[in-house]
Amino acid sequence: MPKIMAINCGSSSLKFQLLQMPEEKVLTKGVIERIGLDDAIFTISVNGEKKREIVEVPDHEAGVSLLLDKLLENNIIKELTEIEGVGHRVDHGGERFHDSVLIDEEVIKGIEACSELAPLHNPANLVGIRAFQKVLPNVPAVAVFDTAFHQTMPEQSYLYSLPYEYYQKYGIRKYGFHGTSHKYVTQRAAELLNLPLEELRLISCHLGNGASIAAVMHGKSIDTSMGFTPLAGVAMGTRSGNIDPALIPYIMKKTGKSADEVVFDVLNKKSGLLGISGISSDLREIEEEAQNGNPRAELALEVFAGRIHKYIGSYAARMSGVDAIIFTAGIGENSPVIREKVLKGLEFMGVYWDPALNRIKGRETFLNYPHSPVKVLVIPTNEEVMIARDTVRLISAKVKA
Amino acid sequence: MPKIMAINCGSSSLKFQLLQMPEEKVLTKGVIERIGLDDAIFTISVNGEKKREIVEVPDHEAGVSLLLDKLLENNIIKELTEIEGVGHRVDHGGERFHDSVLIDEEVIKGIEACSELAPLHNPANLVGIRAFQKVLPNVPAVAVFDTAFHQTMPEQSYLYSLPYEYYQKYGIRKYGFHGTSHKYVTQRAAELLNLPLEELRLISCHLGNGASIAAVMHGKSIDTSMGFTPLAGVAMGTRSGNIDPALIPYIMKKTGKSADEVVFDVLNKKSGLLGISGISSDLREIEEEAQNGNPRAELALEVFAGRIHKYIGSYAARMSGVDAIIFTAGIGENSPVIREKVLKGLEFMGVYWDPALNRIKGRETFLNYPHSPVKVLVIPTNEEVMIARDTVRLISAKVKA
Repeated sequence: MPKIMAINCGSSSLKFQLLQMPEEKVLTKGVIERIGLDDAIFTISVNGEKKREIVEVPDHEAGVSLLLDKLLENNIIKELTEIEGVGHRVDHGGERFHDSVLIDEEVIKGIEACSELAPLHNPANLVGIRAFQKVLPNVPAVAVFDTAFHQTMPEQSYLYSLPYEYYQKYGIRKYGFHGTSHKYVTQRAAELLNLPLEELRLISCHLGNGASIAAVMHGKSIDTSMGFTPLAGVAMGTRSGNIDPALIPYIMKKTGKSADEVVFDVLNKKSGLLGISGISSDLREIEEEAQNGNPRAELALEVFAGRIHKYIGSYAARMSGVDAIIFTAGIGENSPVIREKVLKGLEFMGVYWDPALNRIKGRETFLNYPHSPVKVLVIPTNEEVMIARDTVRLISAKVKA
Repeated sequence: MPKIMAINCGSSSLKFQLLQMPEEKVLTKGVIERIGLDDAIFTISVNGEKKREIVEVPDHEAGVSLLLDKLLENNIIKELTEIEGVGHRVDHGGERFHDSVLIDEEVIKGIEACSELAPLHNPANLVGIRAFQKVLPNVPAVAVFDTAFHQTMPEQSYLYSLPYEYYQKYGIRKYGFHGTSHKYVTQRAAELLNLPLEELRLISCHLGNGASIAAVMHGKSIDTSMGFTPLAGVAMGTRSGNIDPALIPYIMKKTGKSADEVVFDVLNKKSGLLGISGISSDLREIEEEAQNGNPRAELALEVFAGRIHKYIGSYAARMSGVDAIIFTAGIGENSPVIREKVLKGLEFMGVYWDPALNRIKGRETFLNYPHSPVKVLVIPTNEEVMIARDTVRLISAKVKA
């Protein structure tokens, strides 16, 4: 009965979840925030209750030590040896990593090599990996890449229509993100549909603050809306998604900003729902404002949902049809308003959904009428479970080898 | 029986077509190239035969005078007064022009005001307008905008998910292009289908060296793939279409190019079919190479057709279904290879097409089986006829008023 730690490490934060496998039971979870500062915040749930304290956490290594102390102190584990594996979420695996992998020095070098593609995230992920290596040197660790699931995309999908040498020389291609989430919900959809994943054509809509759509055919991602970076695709909380690329020099001229400023400050941080509504990047606030009759809030909802609606049509075409559409992540799980706008008018391709079922929030449910040829599901995502599963799988394989 | 001149004026060229209305009979057509140089080339067809000569054409005004002389000389007209109207193609009408319009000084100012949106094209169009005004001061002229047909798009379609003030301050929105062509083929499709345009949901694929897809619902454009500029949307001969916007600063860093260079030199001129294939921007050459087993040529075809295929799915979703799909322009009219790749796998939405019919090139034809719920048509486009029709309509309205 191994216990597995699932880790998502950012530059100044560390999210953790300890799972009992193979039961997939969450023993505890929490987060350390403001790492590097005197007043870091450590949050952990103990017996369903959230404990929060301000502590000094000079670096990630200190954070990991603190975490382990707290696990013992709160009787979540009795000995450190109970933790049989650590699974690390890694943002970018480039073309190198098609699957999760046991971490060794070569893998670390590989993750470093992919840092150019994710300069903000991969180095932070590596800090977390190193910290666990130091504190728990004998516990095997696994890297789970957010891009790996999309490595099955065919060249037709991942290649941009740019000079081909840009792909060869600079690795410019569509990578796609949210892979762990798309993988989880599509596997789970097959279980709920009671049909083999290998026979299904699924469209997975991960709609959170970041949002991406994936076409998953016979268990493999064959196309996805995010691209070289997570900026591409549909409109998001603060991200523009796709725009006419010629707008970048035009905006530069009009605003005096540099290309980096346009892309990183405006397109990534001031666009999407926030940009259109002028109110917030938080969908709940926009829904409230729209209900109060604010036309720009309503417009933001229409644009957001409209782009997703069109992606569903395009991915149905991509797979010559679709068997089920899945909604997941914060908005996908909890917004009947967006789901309605996305699903409305898809009857022509066999999508018949029940407004009564669509009221359900935050739990696994079918939204379609029983007779609907295309099924519609809400499936809360669970990236930590996927990380834990892959960690167990790779550790077991190593033991056998 | 008015004769109408349809004009498409570029910075150093002037294309013309003289039409007998309302019969829509082409009396002659041709082009003046290399205007401003000592060795300009004047081409005109007389009784179906192409006459070509090298002449000195110092400016557009001289070009127009030459053109009129040649019409008389070749007995195409007997007197200049036979030309009752001139219709000018104008590239960009911004949000100001929703329809074609009789040209007066205010309209010219309006076209000038839109020049910022089309800095290469509108000024050239204006040069042509001024030249005809000088040489034929008493003949009414009409401006036909390539953007006007798309002005019916709802805000949800034309708005980018950027800061809203960019739309208000800088006019940043989707305008769409090829409007005259999309309008012509959708009107013609209704005639061929023998159904009222007002009841049809049509997807028009204008596939030439530039390519755009339009969703035309009940006779009105409600969405289109090109955007603020003609760079956006599907891949084209040398244009990238949509890419992850974050690639622009990345390519700048990798190549040392400026944002303008990346967009205008690379994305507009070295991408698309040319970029992927590394061979040519000419589809016919790429098809030949693909048949000879060149994998990058085949890949270019797959990417080109694949993006169009997905747009058809997304626009069907946009209109809650589709009644007919139309192919037009050079590639759309003449490439069975591309049409097959685009149409394959759309059966799930009711598109059943006949490979035997798909062999037909360059003329009006249905491609669908008779029982197909969604019809598929090839319709050679005819922008000159649209220009002449609008010119007659507006001149007649003026006479009545």
